[in-house]
Order: sequence, then C-alpha cells, then structure tokens
Amino acid sequence: MRIYDIIDKKRNGLELTDAEIEFFVNGFQNGKIPDYQISPLLMAICINGMTDRETAYMTKVMAESGEINDLSAFGDTTVDKHSTGGVGDKTTLIIAPIVASLGCTVAKLSGRGLGHTGGTLDKLESIKGYRTNLSAEEFTEIAKKCSLCVCGAGGNIAPADKKLYALRDVTATVQSIPLIVSSIMSKKLAGGAKSIVLDVKTGSGAFMKTLDDARVLATSMVKIGKLTGKNMSAVITNMAHPLGYTIGNALEVAEAVALLRNQKSDDGLLTVCKTLATEMVSLSKGITQDEAKTLVESALSSGKAYQKFAEWITMQGGDMSVLDDLTAFTSAKYVTELVADCDGYIAKTDASGMGISAMMLGAGRDSKDDEIDMSAGIIQLAHVGDYVKKGQPIARFQSSTVADHSPVHNRYRDSLTLTDTKPQSEPIVYEIIR
Amino acid sequence: MRIYDIIDKKRNGLELTDAEIEFFVNGFQNGKIPDYQISPLLMAICINGMTDRETAYMTKVMAESGEINDLSAFGDTTVDKHSTGGVGDKTTLIIAPIVASLGCTVAKLSGRGLGHTGGTLDKLESIKGYRTNLSAEEFTEIAKKCSLCVCGAGGNIAPADKKLYALRDVTATVQSIPLIVSSIMSKKLAGGAKSIVLDVKTGSGAFMKTLDDARVLATSMVKIGKLTGKNMSAVITNMAHPLGYTIGNALEVAEAVALLRNQKSDDGLLTVCKTLATEMVSLSKGITQDEAKTLVESALSSGKAYQKFAEWITMQGGDMSVLDDLTAFTSAKYVTELVADCDGYIAKTDASGMGISAMMLGAGRDSKDDEIDMSAGIIQLAHVGDYVKKGQPIARFQSSTVADHSPVHNRYRDSLTLTDTKPQSEPIVYEIIR
Repeated sequence: MRIYDIIDKKRNGLELTDAEIEFFVNGFQNGKIPDYQISPLLMAICINGMTDRETAYMTKVMAESGEINDLSAFGDTTVDKHSTGGVGDKTTLIIAPIVASLGCTVAKLSGRGLGHTGGTLDKLESIKGYRTNLSAEEFTEIAKKCSLCVCGAGGNIAPADKKLYALRDVTATVQSIPLIVSSIMSKKLAGGAKSIVLDVKTGSGAFMKTLDDARVLATSMVKIGKLTGKNMSAVITNMAHPLGYTIGNALEVAEAVALLRNQKSDDGLLTVCKTLATEMVSLSKGITQDEAKTLVESALSSGKAYQKFAEWITMQGGDMSVLDDLTAFTSAKYVTELVADCDGYIAKTDASGMGISAMMLGAGRDSKDDEIDMSAGIIQLAHVGDYVKKGQPIARFQSSTVADHSPVHNRYRDSLTLTDTKPQSEPIVYEIIR
Repeated sequence: MRIYDIIDKKRNGLELTDAEIEFFVNGFQNGKIPDYQISPLLMAICINGMTDRETAYMTKVMAESGEINDLSAFGDTTVDKHSTGGVGDKTTLIIAPIVASLGCTVAKLSGRGLGHTGGTLDKLESIKGYRTNLSAEEFTEIAKKCSLCVCGAGGNIAPADKKLYALRDVTATVQSIPLIVSSIMSKKLAGGAKSIVLDVKTGSGAFMKTLDDARVLATSMVKIGKLTGKNMSAVITNMAHPLGYTIGNALEVAEAVALLRNQKSDDGLLTVCKTLATEMVSLSKGITQDEAKTLVESALSSGKAYQKFAEWITMQGGDMSVLDDLTAFTSAKYVTELVADCDGYIAKTDASGMGISAMMLGAGRDSKDDEIDMSAGIIQLAHVGDYVKKGQPIARFQSSTVADHSPVHNRYRDSLTLTDTKPQSEPIVYEIIR
C-alpha cells in the first residue's frame, strides 16, 4: 500500500477502505508517513468529505492508537457526557452526581480549559484537596464505591488524534465535519462508557455558530457513535449567552453546589442539566425519557444528588467543609461592579467576549502553562431579556491577582447590546437527536 | 499575511490575490513556509481550481523566481516551441532550422529525456562535438550569427516550479490543469521568446490520454500565455503511435537529417513538422498561416532548412561529417529483428510501451544519472494501418551495450494489436488553438 494512492483516491472523491484508513492513521502516528503527505490528504477529506463508514472506522483506529479506558467491570451502566465547549458550563458538576445517585456509573476522564471555555478539572481543583491525578486502580476503586469518579485523562488517550489535530491546526483543515466528529468521538470511545450524551452548543460562545451547523455536527456524532457500538444521544443547547449566572472556577462550583442544595438556581442552567441528565439515565438504564425525567427530578429535590456530590468530592480527597460557606469559598481580593450606561433591555450578548473577560481576570488560560486564579470570575447580575436602569449594576468582577479591572469592564461592556424593545426569548434547549 | 489564511481561502474555493500568490510561491522557495502547509494548498488548488488570472500570476511569479533568458537583442522575432512529450519526437531538429532559415530567431533552452520520452539535448549529443553547455555570451553570439541555438537550461530556470513539482510528485497533486499549465508556462516564460507554439500530444504515448483532456490543457496554456504577453498557438497532435519511424537518439537525428535532405520521410512526421513550423513563422512574423505555409514548404524543398541545420550544428561544435553516411552514423553492435506472429493489420499501438522498449535497449534514462547508448533504438518497419504477413519483419532493434533483445521483443510485441480488418485511419494533427 502506498500513501500516494490513498491521497490520489481521496482527491478523486472516492471512499477509502478500512485498511487504507488504518495505514494512513497508524503510519502518521508512528512517523512513517511525513506530515507533508498527511496534510494534503486531510485537505482532500475536508473538501471531498468522508462517508459515515469511513468516519466511524477512522474514529475507531484513532481511539485504538492509545489506551482504552477499561470499564468492563461496570457492565452496561456506564455513561459519559461531552460538551463541545461553552462559557460558564458547569453542567458536569451537577449532572454527574444526579446520574450516579440513580445507579448509573460515571467514570469519566475530563479535560482542562484552554481559551475562553473552562475545563471541569480546573473547576474541581478549586475545592481544596480534590485530586485529579489518580492511578488506574484508584480510579476504578472510587468508581466502584461511589459510581462516580472524574479525573484527568492520561497522556495516551487517542495519541493519533492529538498528532493529527496539531497538523490540522496549522493547515486550515480543522473545519470538516468528519474530522471534527472523528476527533471528538475517538476520545469518547477511549473513555470506555457504553452510553454517551453530547451537549452540542450553538451560538456566539460556541464552535458551531448556527443551529444548522450544530445540527449537522450532532447528527453525525450520534450516527458515528452508534456505528461504533455506543448508545447515543445529542442535545443541542443555546450558547448565545453564558450558562448560568457565573463564569470562573470557584464561582461555578458554588453555583453548582447551590443548585444541588436546592438553594439558588438559574432557569436555563437547570433546564440544560435536567435535559442532559434525563438523556443519560434514559440511555444507560434503557427506560423512557419520561421515566428518566421523573427520576432526575426526585434525585434533585430529595437531596440524593447533593449527597452523591459530597460523597464523590470527599472520596477524591476534596474538603467539603470549604463549601459550607459559599460566600467565603468565592471570596476574592479585588471586587468591582460594572453599571449600565443607559436604560434598556439586554438584547444580545457575545458569550465568547464574556469568556475572554473572565480569562482577563485570571480565570482561564491563554496557553497551556498559564496559572489559574481560582477566585477570579464574573457574576452576571443581569441577563438577556432583563430591563436595566442607567447606573444599575449589571455584573460583578472579582480576582485575586489582577488589580485593574477597567480593561475587563470595557471588554464585557462590548459584549452586551442594549435596546429599547424587549428581545424575543430564545429556547435554551433546541432539540434532542437520538 | 499568514499562509494559514491563504490555505483556508483556497479550501473555501475563493480566488487568491496577486500578493497572496507571491507570498506562498516565494515563501516556499525561500524555505519560510514548510512543505506541510504548501501541500494542502496544492490539494485545495487541485480540487477547487484556480482562475485564469491566478494561474497567469502564479506562472509569472514562478518564472521570475529564477533567471529569465534575455532575448531582447532579437526584437520580436524570437519564437519557441514546446512539446508535452512523446515517443520518437524529433520535431525540434527539423522545425528549428526551417524557422530560423526564414528569419525567425530560435534561441532555445532544451531538456534531457526521462522515462519513455526522449530529450532534444540527448539527440543532439549523438552528433560528435555538439556542445549543449554554452555560456550566456556564446549562446547569444550563436543565436545572433545563426538565428538558431539550442543549449541546456541552466540550474536556475524557474526554481520555484522545480521545488513545487517535487512536492506535487509525492502528494498526488500533479493532475491539475492550473498547476500543469503554470509549471510548463513558467519555464517557457523564463525561456524569453515572444512567440510560443505548443505541441500538445494526445494518445497512448502522451500525458493527456484523450483529445478532450488535451484540448482543455492546450486552451488553458494558450490563454495563460497570452495573459502573460506572449503570442500563442497550440497544435494538438496524435501520440497514439510514435512519431516517424525511429525511436532512439542517433536514429532520430538520422531520420531528421534525411527529411531535411528531402531523402526519406514519414508522412505523419512531415505533417506535424510543417504544421508546427507554419504556426511559428505565422506568429513571429505576423503573417497568415497560408503565407507561412508556403514559406515553410519552400524552405524545405529548396534545401535552405538543411543548410541552416548544418550551419547551426557546426556553430555549436558538431562535426557534420559524421552525418555524411547515415548508415554508419546509426550503426550498432547488436541488431535484431522482430517478425509478425500471424497475418493481419497493425490496428493499434501502445506508444509508451514502444518508448519503454527503446529505453530497455539503452536509448533512454530510468533515473537522472543513467548513461545513454546513442546507438540504441528501434526502427519501425511497419506502422498502424499496414498489413503484415506472418514471419515478415515488423521492427528492427539495435544497441551497443544490451546484448539480449528478447525481453525487448516481448515488450514491443505486447505494444501491438493485429486484427483482420483494416483500422480506421486517425488524423495526425487534430486541431490548432490560437
């Protein structure tokens, strides 16, 4: 087999065989095929596409290029959730304990944040003592005892995808549905769960800016996941504005805890969490969505979900007592407020601009090695659709390292549009694709 | 400017600006842009194409990446010919002296053969003493005195094309009309002539297998040449079988000399030569094709063209006396004949198979450093359309280094199809595109 013929075939828009896909993915990973031959193949795939069969097989080969998380000890109850990335997305902190409290197993490898979207691991580390670095034995033991464990992915998860992604990133070959799908799904396959629920976000803060694009991606991921033997569901959710009222690590943990304690919660966040948890329970238990929804709601209202949260955090070394007083937990050295310039409705927000504002405070990373200020972040005091008076506080900014908030105020202000008429309300959950 | 954005633009099928084309061609040539970013751009060009404007500008930038042959001393009479490559193609040896004898200037950089098609320089070197390596001063002086000079292209002709071609060759991005056109035409532009006539070959021995493909390439080259300020014409000729009756260096020189001396000539070869010479004279003198044709025919019949040939060869150091006895000039150590297996018409030939047969005898190169046996080659004793009897000789094989001709006989026999019915005759010149 020659890589030349594979490139030529895809240039002509033909379908590659399993052996050809294996040849180029493994050949690139082990360094036998140079990048200058893989990048034109990626370009040909970008323009001419791949069939579902090709995409599924490429996903499988990339997953198998590294370790596959072995969750066989848990039978078919294992369930994973993946978000395509958004601002203020603390759903894992809420959903995982709900689902685990209902007998599903969430033994999950998670990631760190880069750019304007946060990472679940970073959020969890704002809880003193929480360990994200577990051995395989510890991971399995905690998952067995608690049905819930969230730790960092080791270096050897889908290494072929890592290498391909680095090349795509510098050759303008990121924008391709089959390549995006195989990249995401190869890591999910390596995660080992039997059921996978995808949170595909759309809007200004998401990778997929339009609902149509999000639908194409979600449909393809569900199809490819099923072809590789998984139970699949995708929920398309609104990321035109940040999820919930906080952005920032300790702030988001506190928001999740308040919701689980049935204290304070944002309607949009609650809806997204319930929808995702319902899909996860329905898929992994093989029950209807209505049945699953009832279970999810009672897990929340009864406090079972919060009990599971406390059990989980404690088992991974976290000190639950730091969460007794959420005000103390989220305190920061510098706190400022931004007030409205004029009267009006908050008509539109640029969620990525808000995410970048939080990053500027120290809540996120620009590059991999940046340190995070766990206390840094933003509390939205007014949401899209709210009417604000001139001089009324619309957001609170906090940080412990960055002292000057004025550039952040400007960036945040630029992310808002105020109008005289009330904006039409948009759904928070657009649709579910199973 | 970033190469990423240029790749992205072409992936989306958009037209690149002059500045963007200059950026990527020059950036690749000077090593600032790595091959893994150029190869996906080439793939995007292959699939999404380039406009004539883009192709013309890319041609210009590649020509200007090296030396441009300065023919300004010769005014507008300079004329060049380019063949897309065929088997037994000795037309330059015949046409150049015809055209030069009529007052046009043929100051031409030529190439060597590789694979199954021969190179004019190799053929000329079968004449004892002929120098293909001239200084710029010698080249200009001979061209001034004789109106005709053919020497080797220096290393610095369109170096950007050389580097791009090497990358295309290993990334399945050779097959693209804009890239083929810009590659050929950049070298022609660097050749410096005002008028250019293209011999675009089609058929089994040519790069373009079908007439439709040849027409697309010819039309595009004419258009791009005109856009860069040249007088252009393309003749589409038949390469379903070798041109003339000989293949091999000394043999082809002898065939050309015999034609110029009005001794023996093959009808097809004569027609192709007259057609190309007519185009060259018509373009460079600005006269009608009918007027040019009359001049070309009289140059041949009067012996003026042969006189010019002798003057040219002598001026470049060649010993014309070796051509006094063409039988002696073409003698070889080993000579064999292949006879027909059965009665029948020669219905079809595989010209490239015949070219490979000649290579196997030592007449051509497999790789750049191979030595050529000037005496090696094939004389076709029967052509397509001829009726042969079983046992009748159909080809003569000769060589001075390869002693065993039997593998060559087999290869040559496989290149022929014999049938009971006379094949329909095909035109030798399909059409002229101006």
